[in-house]
Amino acid sequence: MAAEIVNPRSDSESRTGRTEQGDGAEPLDSFDPAFALHRGGKMAVQATVPIRDKDDLSLAYTPGVAKVCSAIAEQPDLVHDYTWKSQVVAVVTDGTAVLGLGDIGPEASLPVMEGKAILFKQFGGVDAVPIALACTDVDEIVETVVRLAPSFGGVNLEDISAPRCFEIEKRLQERLDIPVFHDDQHGTAVVTLAALRNAARLSGRPLGDLRAVISGAGAAGVAIAKMLIEAGIGDVAVADRKGVVSRDRGDLTPIKAELASFTNKAGISGSLESALSGADVFIGVSGGTVPEPAVASMAEGAFVFAMANPNPEVHPEIAHKYAAVVATGRSDFPNQINNVLAFPGIFAGALQVRASRITEGMKLAAAEALASVVGDDLAADYVIPSPFDERVAPAVTAAVAAAARAEGVARR
Amino acid sequence: MAAEIVNPRSDSESRTGRTEQGDGAEPLDSFDPAFALHRGGKMAVQATVPIRDKDDLSLAYTPGVAKVCSAIAEQPDLVHDYTWKSQVVAVVTDGTAVLGLGDIGPEASLPVMEGKAILFKQFGGVDAVPIALACTDVDEIVETVVRLAPSFGGVNLEDISAPRCFEIEKRLQERLDIPVFHDDQHGTAVVTLAALRNAARLSGRPLGDLRAVISGAGAAGVAIAKMLIEAGIGDVAVADRKGVVSRDRGDLTPIKAELASFTNKAGISGSLESALSGADVFIGVSGGTVPEPAVASMAEGAFVFAMANPNPEVHPEIAHKYAAVVATGRSDFPNQINNVLAFPGIFAGALQVRASRITEGMKLAAAEALASVVGDDLAADYVIPSPFDERVAPAVTAAVAAAARAEGVARR
Repeated sequence: MAAEIVNPRSDSESRTGRTEQGDGAEPLDSFDPAFALHRGGKMAVQATVPIRDKDDLSLAYTPGVAKVCSAIAEQPDLVHDYTWKSQVVAVVTDGTAVLGLGDIGPEASLPVMEGKAILFKQFGGVDAVPIALACTDVDEIVETVVRLAPSFGGVNLEDISAPRCFEIEKRLQERLDIPVFHDDQHGTAVVTLAALRNAARLSGRPLGDLRAVISGAGAAGVAIAKMLIEAGIGDVAVADRKGVVSRDRGDLTPIKAELASFTNKAGISGSLESALSGADVFIGVSGGTVPEPAVASMAEGAFVFAMANPNPEVHPEIAHKYAAVVATGRSDFPNQINNVLAFPGIFAGALQVRASRITEGMKLAAAEALASVVGDDLAADYVIPSPFDERVAPAVTAAVAAAARAEGVARR
Repeated sequence: MAAEIVNPRSDSESRTGRTEQGDGAEPLDSFDPAFALHRGGKMAVQATVPIRDKDDLSLAYTPGVAKVCSAIAEQPDLVHDYTWKSQVVAVVTDGTAVLGLGDIGPEASLPVMEGKAILFKQFGGVDAVPIALACTDVDEIVETVVRLAPSFGGVNLEDISAPRCFEIEKRLQERLDIPVFHDDQHGTAVVTLAALRNAARLSGRPLGDLRAVISGAGAAGVAIAKMLIEAGIGDVAVADRKGVVSRDRGDLTPIKAELASFTNKAGISGSLESALSGADVFIGVSGGTVPEPAVASMAEGAFVFAMANPNPEVHPEIAHKYAAVVATGRSDFPNQINNVLAFPGIFAGALQVRASRITEGMKLAAAEALASVVGDDLAADYVIPSPFDERVAPAVTAAVAAAARAEGVARR
């Protein structure tokens, strides 16, 4: 996606008095509301204690702070009580898989990481700090995050390309005693499952009766497949660009081979289109376009979740011709599958009970709670709540905290 | 220093609803105002743009944010305009030399790092994030900070033990194009020089006439010695626990051997006490106590800067018997040498012009500006302004920004 480069606006200033572009840079269209909004960044730090005079200073800093440091040195758990550690999450990326833009590097990923950070705050009350790393090697990323971990209560991995993201998350969770959560995987999976639960409820069908097809075997596709199986879906097949991932394919990466081992009970091979024939659920997390005849070939009363942004795999107008429930990733159509419904509450709940990790049970509980917010208002155009529904984060937070306790990973 | 462990206060709650100590931890004295103030930490993140509805969301996050990311990918300098990078500093420690407490580890250092972060904000308008690292190896610290650097506009090194701190700072500054500043060295040196300039002005003596003795050859002592020489002091000798650092000593570390090569023109050897005989300036950054006879042996009209906290090397009451100007590190005596007078403005100035580093000239300019705030009110008990003097940070900021331009390290 190219930047629009038209007119400078020389009078625009950021909070720190910036007035000009960097040397040699062509001016951008500062009239574009996205650029105007981003000028100077989207976040700041604030003190939550007063520093008005020397008495305040001698409590918040030396000499008063020394007592608190000494107490933590003697009783390490007190770091959770007397610092912001337990309410701050590192939003970590290497900039290799940013939105639909791909490998644009750490600096260019920062606007997304800042956006994520302020969504954490706005929707979950969780502080978050963007950490965009100048390394892409798995070992280096893991070591770096392990070294940073004393300062943070959790790690949200973001926009790291597959399959590296799977190994990074796994190894970090093994090394750290704080939650590590790759939102592109699990956040997407939680919201998808919540929508699917409600679509199934609307149709009066148990999840175990449904056969789903997922287009896309990257971070989101793999995580959704796993989660649907955890939740008891009848069957799920995942297609990559070469077709359905099946045990008889000879070209599978280790992650896809694992995927083949627990998905596609029906043993389908061939194209995505052929897999859709008679399927109950389509879940698109791939981009690309699904031809209308393939949508038409799905089972009666199907669900089409075409989540690619900005261009859904199936345009909602076409999907509605054949499907009982249609969802997208876009805010301008009903039923938006948006991760912001999940990650703020998931981390808020995990941090609240100082969970050491985010388990499958906690994610399932989050999906359950998210689905339940819809309640009696359930309808074909309302299987998932709005991101601005104020009931969402408290419901997810409470469910995740309770699940953490039930699963024995809570520490308070 | 032991934590006071007396009574729990069960009704105390932090911002995130914490009510209890960690399991198995003995309760602390929550009536102690330092603990009460620190509960839940001292800082938070805030959004600086609205997220009230889906239109806001589509600008601050997807899809609007993609344009900004793409623009930065094409024109990397734009990261300074459209993210918070250029206004946020990483406050990096490994927890090895925290206050007077020593090597207490990264978690226990966090209250100090949070304190530093909120001082950056309060006094310099600079956002800052505590980064306490779980590694102490020089190579590992350097690599880790290099990997973090895309997210930050500057690096403030804090409470890292000598001599590692010297190498870490040097190597980071070689690797990075953003300011790297070890405050325990340079912040202390800047404020000390400012106070010394004013003491000299009060006495009508040029710096070149003065012979100074520094007690302590750690981070602060080495940096002060270098800076006083840059500023044109007549002579300066530095003493460690074994006496004055001189070329004839056979036990010098590489840093102290370097120190011996450019200090102590007079060729003094022997004890700190013997070096003080006839000296014009005492600068204490060591702890320990200087015997009264040694203070009495200093030149007429001497300056005694006894900066150890909480116990100055020379108690001000004793110092005043012999010295024309007395300064300490404490807020309850006049002339407090406090780093908060320097680092917020130094970073604010460097960030304002996007300096690639903080040069000697910028530090000298900071000291000059800080000294000049005192102006015509100069007096023996007022050689340095109060941390709460609102003229300080703007004066330092402007001077540092101008010096960065003059020295060719400014990028705007």
